[in-house]
Amino acid sequence: MPDGFLTPRSIALVGVSTRTGPAVFNVIDQVLAGGFTGRIYPVNPRGGELRGLPVYRSVSEIPEVVDLAVISTPRTAVPEIVRECAARGVKAVIVITQGFADADEAGHRLQEELLQAVSGTGTRLVGPNTIGVVNLYDHLNTSFIEFTRQPADTATICQSGIFLLGSADFTCGIGLGVDIGNAADIDFNQTLAALGTDSRIRVLNLHMEGLADGRRFMEIARQVSREKPVLCLKTGRSEAGARAASSHSGSLAGEDHVFGAAFKQCGVIRVRDVEEMRYFNKTFLTYRSMPGRRLAVVTISGGAGIAAVDACGDYGLEAARFSAQTNDKLAAVFPGWMEVGNPADIWPAGMSRGYREVLELALDTILDDPQVDALLMISPAYVDPDADPRLDISAHVNRAAARHPDKPLALWIFGAYRRELTARMEAAGRVAVYPSPDRAVASLAVLYRYVHGIKNAPAALPADTGGINRELVGQILAAARRDGRTTLNEEALDVLRACGIPALPYTPAIDGAGAVRAAADFGYPVVMKIASPQISHKSDVGGVKVNLTGAAEVRAAYDDMLHTVKERMPQARINGVIIQPYRPGGTEVILGSKRDPSFGPVLVYGLGGIYTELFRDVSFRIAPITGEEAREMIRETKSYRLLSGFRGRPPADLDALAECLLRLGRLVAVQPQIREMDINPLLAGPDGAVAVDARITIDNHTGEETPEQK
Amino acid sequence: MPDGFLTPRSIALVGVSTRTGPAVFNVIDQVLAGGFTGRIYPVNPRGGELRGLPVYRSVSEIPEVVDLAVISTPRTAVPEIVRECAARGVKAVIVITQGFADADEAGHRLQEELLQAVSGTGTRLVGPNTIGVVNLYDHLNTSFIEFTRQPADTATICQSGIFLLGSADFTCGIGLGVDIGNAADIDFNQTLAALGTDSRIRVLNLHMEGLADGRRFMEIARQVSREKPVLCLKTGRSEAGARAASSHSGSLAGEDHVFGAAFKQCGVIRVRDVEEMRYFNKTFLTYRSMPGRRLAVVTISGGAGIAAVDACGDYGLEAARFSAQTNDKLAAVFPGWMEVGNPADIWPAGMSRGYREVLELALDTILDDPQVDALLMISPAYVDPDADPRLDISAHVNRAAARHPDKPLALWIFGAYRRELTARMEAAGRVAVYPSPDRAVASLAVLYRYVHGIKNAPAALPADTGGINRELVGQILAAARRDGRTTLNEEALDVLRACGIPALPYTPAIDGAGAVRAAADFGYPVVMKIASPQISHKSDVGGVKVNLTGAAEVRAAYDDMLHTVKERMPQARINGVIIQPYRPGGTEVILGSKRDPSFGPVLVYGLGGIYTELFRDVSFRIAPITGEEAREMIRETKSYRLLSGFRGRPPADLDALAECLLRLGRLVAVQPQIREMDINPLLAGPDGAVAVDARITIDNHTGEETPEQK
Repeated sequence: MPDGFLTPRSIALVGVSTRTGPAVFNVIDQVLAGGFTGRIYPVNPRGGELRGLPVYRSVSEIPEVVDLAVISTPRTAVPEIVRECAARGVKAVIVITQGFADADEAGHRLQEELLQAVSGTGTRLVGPNTIGVVNLYDHLNTSFIEFTRQPADTATICQSGIFLLGSADFTCGIGLGVDIGNAADIDFNQTLAALGTDSRIRVLNLHMEGLADGRRFMEIARQVSREKPVLCLKTGRSEAGARAASSHSGSLAGEDHVFGAAFKQCGVIRVRDVEEMRYFNKTFLTYRSMPGRRLAVVTISGGAGIAAVDACGDYGLEAARFSAQTNDKLAAVFPGWMEVGNPADIWPAGMSRGYREVLELALDTILDDPQVDALLMISPAYVDPDADPRLDISAHVNRAAARHPDKPLALWIFGAYRRELTARMEAAGRVAVYPSPDRAVASLAVLYRYVHGIKNAPAALPADTGGINRELVGQILAAARRDGRTTLNEEALDVLRACGIPALPYTPAIDGAGAVRAAADFGYPVVMKIASPQISHKSDVGGVKVNLTGAAEVRAAYDDMLHTVKERMPQARINGVIIQPYRPGGTEVILGSKRDPSFGPVLVYGLGGIYTELFRDVSFRIAPITGEEAREMIRETKSYRLLSGFRGRPPADLDALAECLLRLGRLVAVQPQIREMDINPLLAGPDGAVAVDARITIDNHTGEETPEQK
Repeated sequence: MPDGFLTPRSIALVGVSTRTGPAVFNVIDQVLAGGFTGRIYPVNPRGGELRGLPVYRSVSEIPEVVDLAVISTPRTAVPEIVRECAARGVKAVIVITQGFADADEAGHRLQEELLQAVSGTGTRLVGPNTIGVVNLYDHLNTSFIEFTRQPADTATICQSGIFLLGSADFTCGIGLGVDIGNAADIDFNQTLAALGTDSRIRVLNLHMEGLADGRRFMEIARQVSREKPVLCLKTGRSEAGARAASSHSGSLAGEDHVFGAAFKQCGVIRVRDVEEMRYFNKTFLTYRSMPGRRLAVVTISGGAGIAAVDACGDYGLEAARFSAQTNDKLAAVFPGWMEVGNPADIWPAGMSRGYREVLELALDTILDDPQVDALLMISPAYVDPDADPRLDISAHVNRAAARHPDKPLALWIFGAYRRELTARMEAAGRVAVYPSPDRAVASLAVLYRYVHGIKNAPAALPADTGGINRELVGQILAAARRDGRTTLNEEALDVLRACGIPALPYTPAIDGAGAVRAAADFGYPVVMKIASPQISHKSDVGGVKVNLTGAAEVRAAYDDMLHTVKERMPQARINGVIIQPYRPGGTEVILGSKRDPSFGPVLVYGLGGIYTELFRDVSFRIAPITGEEAREMIRETKSYRLLSGFRGRPPADLDALAECLLRLGRLVAVQPQIREMDINPLLAGPDGAVAVDARITIDNHTGEETPEQK
């Protein structure tokens, strides 16, 4: 991303109106109001003068090659101006105009033209359909709308200008911001790489509707999130929302659970809405550390303290248990009838011994306690603190916070004057005030998660592709392609074996005698399954018989199965049957992979049988994954308990199961021609895991997409 | 609840400090500041004068029988003063003092003394451990703390004073309020009955830690919630929170899911936290109707509109589809390249045709559309509306809202000056402003739910107990009690049959020959189960054999089962076996009931097998239930899909299943000696439902509680 976008020394404002002032929405007014110190060149074919500056008739007339051109002409005029900029050597161009890929067919074509105009020229483009950039460090903004420029060490990358214009509200202020708009050229990834490495920025905020290259995003975000928190508001979550997103910025929103998995893997913290975004920003701008998850609550109301303890349970923090020393110190001032503990209700003690004195003692004592990692102070704002300075405890709270910069001291303040007291409390930047215990605890929990989870997680993508016999896999897939087949059934088990994933052996048979020979080779009991490229759900058509215990049974089963299947699926080509050893026991799980347009191969794991669908108890990750991610995938399903010794069942070998997921991830990552893959079921037992049935769908010869098989 | 509590003409303030002014927390200061117009009598043994009023040495010295006494002496002095009040004929007493059931053993005893002091006297008590009452209609409050008295037509009943003191923040103001504190005498139910019937009150707010009599609460709440919304913040949700609640007000928090079920049944709307409470109050104070669930979004940002559509999906509203007429009217002003639809992004049109003109057209056109039930306007507050009145669209919005008082016009406003613009918008009381699309949509969704669900639901509890042969049930239970048994196994099936719940027949057998005779009577195949009062999980000890197809098999099974069970459970008394017909097929579900200390018999329903526990896929209701509630119980589990024709399975007879739940609810409601009951499994098939196994635990002879069996 050329420097010209965020730190230009000169700007051309192309297509600015000749009118200025209120309600005209002229960029020049905002650039001047922001205090930009570089050179400004308004451009309009009519020429003349604007806000005391000469107006140039075209970019070519400007006496220097500007660092940045900002275009806001009607859409049909844009491509020619971009070409002119590129020819002149302007490296950074912002297209504010709407009506491109966000609009009709003509708009899509115009956006294509823009891309062609800069292709190979070294000129780069932000937009179209953007309000451009904000850099409050250097007094730059290209917005055409007046907004509150509240500086803060945060950066925002968005697909809608409101996230820059409303930054004082959404992110507690802003330092750098880019509205990538339709992201025709410069996209999320390039912007994230640029803003993410700016050492002044302490929190990165993303407003995302869609992503063109999800895998590259993950690489960059993984690096950036180790340095500073990356928060993301992903919209277009719902189906209706995704449709709306597509017409807003031409983004493909994709499946929400895939984004969720990707964010988890690369350390991006998802925020639910703009309120959460605001409070998470406040949190990360105020606090840098939190030693553990043990929260102390100091309250002026027992009832309020209970609400805070409830929230701890919801968000994974723990109510701290005070040390004996802390309890003794508090007991010395608490009334005799009152039990000392966490939450510490200081009201009765404060009434008899002076509120501020007890408050100071409680805050200092509790923050000194090594068994406490953070403190939530619950305090009222019933009346105007400006009218009665006695009610302002901000000095006391800030003094206590300053003694322990490593432990967050947060506040929940309530009452009519909540905002006034909040401003006083937060003025020194040492404490953060929240409007509910829920907000406070959720915010501290995300701080803990960041400091202890994301910040120290490995920054590199798992690169190991060991254990995959790529040559053998390639041969099996190539053989299917040669036959013109895009679906592999039994051979999928051979592919698995070539990846080190245990799979049941199978032997094909084309008549009863062959079936009996195969069965005898394996030893009884055996399973018989119909072999047909057209039949996916074999048991639905009578194509599976389990627990066959002898030769006669096998022979009868063969005749019966072929008869039944032919009757039910007369069009299917049937290649006889396959025989497998019968292995009862173990828990049936499903492993699979599907190709996402943005993120590529996505792994899915869940309980087998009808329950996966019924309870949607599945987990997702972008492939490849690490061993730890494989274990997470297993642990985050509810059916995990079933595998870990539920109600007296023998626990399954989870390491073996995780290894299967890990290897499946490697396989689909290195074999891009695998479009979709299912191991269904894989039996997870106490002595290991084994794939029983599998299916692979590959792209056909020509590389064209074939229609989905399911 | 005597009138003296909320509309006293005279108040005794017993135990007030002789000091007044800031930081003394003297009730008399607040009573006077509030503008109370009745007679005030401070009481303190020292006598003298306070704020110009003579101080009486005791309640007996006061020259009249006051309507209300407010006591704030040290705790040990309280019982004697309460006795004095009762003797004097004071009908309403508030005990502010802490340190009773909220504290140590001595405190519990003191609270008992308070109760005895008023018992049978006609004197009633609010508290102890309370800040008392608020009645802003009559300028009364008994708080000892200064707070903002913002009037609003809401009432609050709480167990923590902060909900009255912080009402300007939590509930957008207040009209009436009672802090029931420890609720030693006057409790939630009596207060709810009193405040709920006040016609001035439009929203009732509850802060609840626990409930002594849940069934009575439901009766009252069911009545009140048909007249006005009842919102409840239930704290002590988590286990740790429940422990904290018990030491705060001596409440037993009970199991959270039971409260959840009870609230659903009696129309109480649960709020997650104080922020949600605030916005739900704002919603109900602003809007009275919402014709349907179709939401239109008018936005100045496409990206923001997408977030609103996402929220619709989350909270069960629908994005409206505009009529052709609406689309045409909007298309006439929108730029040609822009598709017209919902959300309607009016920014491009506003830029070219004037923002306010387009805004007015859009609001009026869309609110006129019969396919739209509510409108969310998304609007910025980037700069100070006081500095630039052009940015204030509140007049336009309010004009549009006034034209359609039946359809909510809500706003999401963002930017640094959100609060300033919000105040202007809301001044006329016609529109509500929210800080995020999530808040706005969640609030409109709860309005819809109230108007269309709760408001019109039947107000009476289901009283029908038809179809239960109470005499027969009584005989079976009495027989067990006579034998000294508290657990019924096979006989539980007889109890079910007596309630009209189909149950598999069974025949006991005490030897192999008897088993064969019984099997022959039913016809093969049959099931054999061990009969022993000590064995609950029969299959775990080899006590169940299914699908026995002939006499030899039955005889062998009998010998084998008795041998195996005796080996595994040598202490168990074995009464032979029972034989039942074997009925394969159908889905196994569990129906049960358990007695809750506050709500009495609670029904539970869920999928059978290990999945109930694994996925916690169960629903609860307080018994008895209506037919509609029975169907809701089935529908709100995820396993519902399994019963309704999942993946080609035949759908189960849901009416028959609901009927079983309904009748089970009647049974446990009329037979209070049933402590716990399980039908596990009940087979739900396409042709009806039938109980296969059941167990009942009853109270023993003496009426004492026996330890739990599980």
